[in-house]
Amino acid sequence: MSSIPKSTKAWTVHGANGFDSLKLNEQVPVPEVSDYEVLVKFHAASLNYRDLIIPKGLYPFALADDVVPGSDGAGEVISVGSKVTRFKPGAKVVTLFNQGHLGGSLNPQTYATGLGGVIDGTLRQYGTFNENGLVDMPPSLNWHEASTLSCAALTAWNGLYGLKPVKPGDVVLTQGTGGVSIFALQFAKAAGAKVISTTSSAKKAEVLKKLGADEVINYKEFTEWGEKAKSLTAGGEGVDHIIEVGGSTTMEQSLKAIKIDGVISVIGFLGGNGEKEPSFLEALLKLCTVRGILVGNRIQFEEMNRAIEINKIKPVVDEKVFSLDELKEAYQYMWDQKHFGKLTIKIE
Amino acid sequence: MSSIPKSTKAWTVHGANGFDSLKLNEQVPVPEVSDYEVLVKFHAASLNYRDLIIPKGLYPFALADDVVPGSDGAGEVISVGSKVTRFKPGAKVVTLFNQGHLGGSLNPQTYATGLGGVIDGTLRQYGTFNENGLVDMPPSLNWHEASTLSCAALTAWNGLYGLKPVKPGDVVLTQGTGGVSIFALQFAKAAGAKVISTTSSAKKAEVLKKLGADEVINYKEFTEWGEKAKSLTAGGEGVDHIIEVGGSTTMEQSLKAIKIDGVISVIGFLGGNGEKEPSFLEALLKLCTVRGILVGNRIQFEEMNRAIEINKIKPVVDEKVFSLDELKEAYQYMWDQKHFGKLTIKIE
Amino acid sequence: MSSIPKSTKAWTVHGANGFDSLKLNEQVPVPEVSDYEVLVKFHAASLNYRDLIIPKGLYPFALADDVVPGSDGAGEVISVGSKVTRFKPGAKVVTLFNQGHLGGSLNPQTYATGLGGVIDGTLRQYGTFNENGLVDMPPSLNWHEASTLSCAALTAWNGLYGLKPVKPGDVVLTQGTGGVSIFALQFAKAAGAKVISTTSSAKKAEVLKKLGADEVINYKEFTEWGEKAKSLTAGGEGVDHIIEVGGSTTMEQSLKAIKIDGVISVIGFLGGNGEKEPSFLEALLKLCTVRGILVGNRIQFEEMNRAIEINKIKPVVDEKVFSLDELKEAYQYMWDQKHFGKLTIKIE
Amino acid sequence: MSSIPKSTKAWTVHGANGFDSLKLNEQVPVPEVSDYEVLVKFHAASLNYRDLIIPKGLYPFALADDVVPGSDGAGEVISVGSKVTRFKPGAKVVTLFNQGHLGGSLNPQTYATGLGGVIDGTLRQYGTFNENGLVDMPPSLNWHEASTLSCAALTAWNGLYGLKPVKPGDVVLTQGTGGVSIFALQFAKAAGAKVISTTSSAKKAEVLKKLGADEVINYKEFTEWGEKAKSLTAGGEGVDHIIEVGGSTTMEQSLKAIKIDGVISVIGFLGGNGEKEPSFLEALLKLCTVRGILVGNRIQFEEMNRAIEINKIKPVVDEKVFSLDELKEAYQYMWDQKHFGKLTIKIE
Repeated sequence: MSSIPKSTKAWTVHGANGFDSLKLNEQVPVPEVSDYEVLVKFHAASLNYRDLIIPKGLYPFALADDVVPGSDGAGEVISVGSKVTRFKPGAKVVTLFNQGHLGGSLNPQTYATGLGGVIDGTLRQYGTFNENGLVDMPPSLNWHEASTLSCAALTAWNGLYGLKPVKPGDVVLTQGTGGVSIFALQFAKAAGAKVISTTSSAKKAEVLKKLGADEVINYKEFTEWGEKAKSLTAGGEGVDHIIEVGGSTTMEQSLKAIKIDGVISVIGFLGGNGEKEPSFLEALLKLCTVRGILVGNRIQFEEMNRAIEINKIKPVVDEKVFSLDELKEAYQYMWDQKHFGKLTIKIE
Repeated sequence: MSSIPKSTKAWTVHGANGFDSLKLNEQVPVPEVSDYEVLVKFHAASLNYRDLIIPKGLYPFALADDVVPGSDGAGEVISVGSKVTRFKPGAKVVTLFNQGHLGGSLNPQTYATGLGGVIDGTLRQYGTFNENGLVDMPPSLNWHEASTLSCAALTAWNGLYGLKPVKPGDVVLTQGTGGVSIFALQFAKAAGAKVISTTSSAKKAEVLKKLGADEVINYKEFTEWGEKAKSLTAGGEGVDHIIEVGGSTTMEQSLKAIKIDGVISVIGFLGGNGEKEPSFLEALLKLCTVRGILVGNRIQFEEMNRAIEINKIKPVVDEKVFSLDELKEAYQYMWDQKHFGKLTIKIE
Repeated sequence: MSSIPKSTKAWTVHGANGFDSLKLNEQVPVPEVSDYEVLVKFHAASLNYRDLIIPKGLYPFALADDVVPGSDGAGEVISVGSKVTRFKPGAKVVTLFNQGHLGGSLNPQTYATGLGGVIDGTLRQYGTFNENGLVDMPPSLNWHEASTLSCAALTAWNGLYGLKPVKPGDVVLTQGTGGVSIFALQFAKAAGAKVISTTSSAKKAEVLKKLGADEVINYKEFTEWGEKAKSLTAGGEGVDHIIEVGGSTTMEQSLKAIKIDGVISVIGFLGGNGEKEPSFLEALLKLCTVRGILVGNRIQFEEMNRAIEINKIKPVVDEKVFSLDELKEAYQYMWDQKHFGKLTIKIE
Repeated sequence: MSSIPKSTKAWTVHGANGFDSLKLNEQVPVPEVSDYEVLVKFHAASLNYRDLIIPKGLYPFALADDVVPGSDGAGEVISVGSKVTRFKPGAKVVTLFNQGHLGGSLNPQTYATGLGGVIDGTLRQYGTFNENGLVDMPPSLNWHEASTLSCAALTAWNGLYGLKPVKPGDVVLTQGTGGVSIFALQFAKAAGAKVISTTSSAKKAEVLKKLGADEVINYKEFTEWGEKAKSLTAGGEGVDHIIEVGGSTTMEQSLKAIKIDGVISVIGFLGGNGEKEPSFLEALLKLCTVRGILVGNRIQFEEMNRAIEINKIKPVVDEKVFSLDELKEAYQYMWDQKHFGKLTIKIE
């Protein structure tokens, strides 16, 4: 266990002037833990698209002033408050995105507990958290792998298990090679589903197949990939679960691929301009279910971690790793879409 | 038990020239039952909007030539085939809309088994049906009441129980005074839910309150009734279940009323022109679930009938009753929206 | 809002010498709240069978030394810690039995967080609790009514909703007039179920009927009440849900009453000596499901409270009310089975 | 497609004198199909313990006189009635055990539709069935493999998916190397679960490990295998799903292994004499769920077949195959427990 320095590094976000809004603070005092809190020494964090748009002023939700950014992080519990029961010093932990989302659905209160938005996040050396806002890290993962679970993995898990749990024999469709999509592919394969993945290049198709995709459709070749995907299901009945990350253009195809009573999980903020978006009446015509999701709750997180552990699932992490000091460069690298898999930050 | 005449009356639909496409056939032979079939003497049928648009050529799905119209009917089993086990002569029965939808989800095969569309329906004196396409009539209902269950009631039940079963304490929102909406109101009240109903007149509001609505919103007064409905829920968290019958304009309000993880069940063909329809990205922003449904399966039908029986639910039937010979007049009466509650046909 | 006295009254349990093990402490300091805690001024508590057997040394689970007894209580939040978000001063609250049971299933950690057993309970004037261990009190209840919810009501709710949610039209069987059974009757009626209740006297039968029971069976008249109950269900198919409180002798009858795939929820410690207890192979023969439950989680508690509020359910409280000073007398009164409905303590 | 002989072979059961009660009839006419029936030419059948105890007079349920035995079979559809929609000639099919169990729970009517008990079964060359009593055979299986699905596989599937669907990361415990247990192991592994299997020999342990078992416990070494199994789960919390095939002695251990809210599925007739059977109060103490099951419904069967196909699951079939003429020898071979995996009959 590390000894605790008196003062430590933490990034904060000031305004909305792009990545220059990020400021590295070098002399931040390490907060004391109160009764139900634990002090975490972070070892790694991972970035999400949401992190990038916060300093760019494009994030449409509430933000605290000068918030410490970053929702995803993995670290070690250094000390615990007098009434803490969930963790002991030395425990390896991962952060929960919505700190108050302990089970069931979000509500107006817990909706406003996002790390790195309204609550200080993970892009710092040390942080204190209510013991309820952390989960045990799957022992088989390293810090970097574990740091990717908070948002991307849990969103994928919620899509596959939050409404109608995937069963062996179901068909799952994933789009592209973003973090959520790759986790969805991995979870669906672990669950005995058939996975159809879309992508734009032969090279990425190879990676998707290595990760287990049964079928890969190049959506540049098959612009009508919805019909194509449907034709790849037994009896042409369609896809049971679609993890919809793209927005209006992909949604149109997803509606062609989906099975009766199939579920399209809509996530992320990548959507289009709204002009050509399919209307809700399509759900009637296709007799399918469309569900909007925002990450997931702690019970789901713990269930997911059991699945990761038992199935030896390894999060796909970009080989390029940035140090905490290089955070702005990391943001730019990800903004330029140079990454494959989750981009992580090493925190020493 | 009636004696069986040699020939009987049956309506058929010929072409798409409006209600004149309906033809009354006076000398239709009564079909013999084969091993797994039962012969039903109908006593009542009820009409749905779908019935009206079939002869008008507006029905967008498959139709058999010269089909006997009508999907909803109640009658008596007159004779049974040698291997029938579900019914005995004298049994009182109601028709299942999709004759092949015995459980679970529809599939491409069972999707194409709609009575009065691809399979001969209920607007006739006698019909033979596979024993699987009928359910026992709730004993407390009369023929007319029972004849309303096949589509309107089962659609409402599927909306409330098909994905996330309503629990006591949930809030359910119904729109207007159509058949599905009124059944949804009655089922939701029986289930211990709070019901918020919308309507356009004080007179209809009175009826809705008599049927149990806890709150009625006049949508002419409150064009922004979505916000209003939300404000009527505990903590302003929103509505758990919405039975969405209206289409694009109401959908916009429904999305304002819905709770996080609430379910909007989209039914019917009443939608608008698509210009201003809310897009699917709204489901992401509201974190809700939108589900298209088409009536329901036989297991749901039987569960619903138990609920009707135990809770003494009485379907709301228009006082005006037409005879089988007056079918065209009945269609016109309903087309002119002169009815309140389900419009039924007496079949002698 | 009350002003906080410097020292207050609290009962504690010392040893296992019967009710004389209970000691009233008059000068207990009011604890300060830490960051995530709230201070509650109790106004009422209710007693459970578990409370009685703790000082008698019959409670088979872990106990803290000198614990403050009582798991059920209702009171007012007097002050809140600096990081509390769930409550504000003035909030009316009820205690959660297992303080750590916030959602999902119990686990070895949360199993050991029972109020009045391993954690100081409700039989005192003031107590501090982690904000997570309390729920909002249903506004329509008074302190005494609300204080009965923590165990008896939530156990009944868990029985009816924790595995296979009750639907309108289901048949629910309750046994006797204990707290859990009466709540189960009330919840099942609110949910549109048919309720069959057993009892031993015509007088109690009257009360059960007033509370909504559709059928009451006097088990002294019908010792084979299992068959009797089954005969009262549609088609003689059996009962969907049984709240089994009695133990081995009633279990034998419950197994005769249950439907295929019906659920028998086994609760409480009232069972027999094991000699004649039905074996698990009965579950195979009856094709039913038997589930052991221990109260319920916080999500269920909040859902239950919504149901109570919307359905205006009034807990049945014994007219006899004891003061906090008279706790021993209250324990004796309940031990002698002089109560009907929940026995409550007024805390001033 | 085969041409249909005028008369064919079929076994029937006469009385309860042991395997001599079985009689081979050589000149059975091939029945004609009526409107909703299909004629099946069987190619393989598999035997179950139930088949053996029927001629021994030990089967405690209803039996038709001179019934054709055998519930499990795979064959080809030779001809179809005029109104059949589910199959065409040439279709490869497998039999459904309870012919009327099309979805949901069994009821008193569908409970009495077991093949080879009250309805003529599969141990014959040709049989006619209502089209609803068959499902499509998974294309990747041969006749013998497919013939094992009707009972053993569907029972295992129902145990794992009928109440609380297995999720990746769950822990499943299977007992021994009987048909249901091996299918449960295969399905659980396909679903991403951890599997703990018990057995009595090192040799069988090897086979179980080859089939995917993560842990194998020799119950002769560890008579207290319940505790052992529990210790092999994360945090020692216990097993999520147990497929309980043994009866009273294994049940005692299962109750030690099970997790809070875990499910013990009780199947089969292998139980003991009842003397030492654990009582239902154990379910309370362990806070677990015990569920009796009898095979499963057609919706489950079709879902299972999708899982088998997509996960390329191969039923374990004994290398020894008997011809239809050798049926008595096959019964004796199985009675002597000489088989490993399912014992099948070749039907030409």
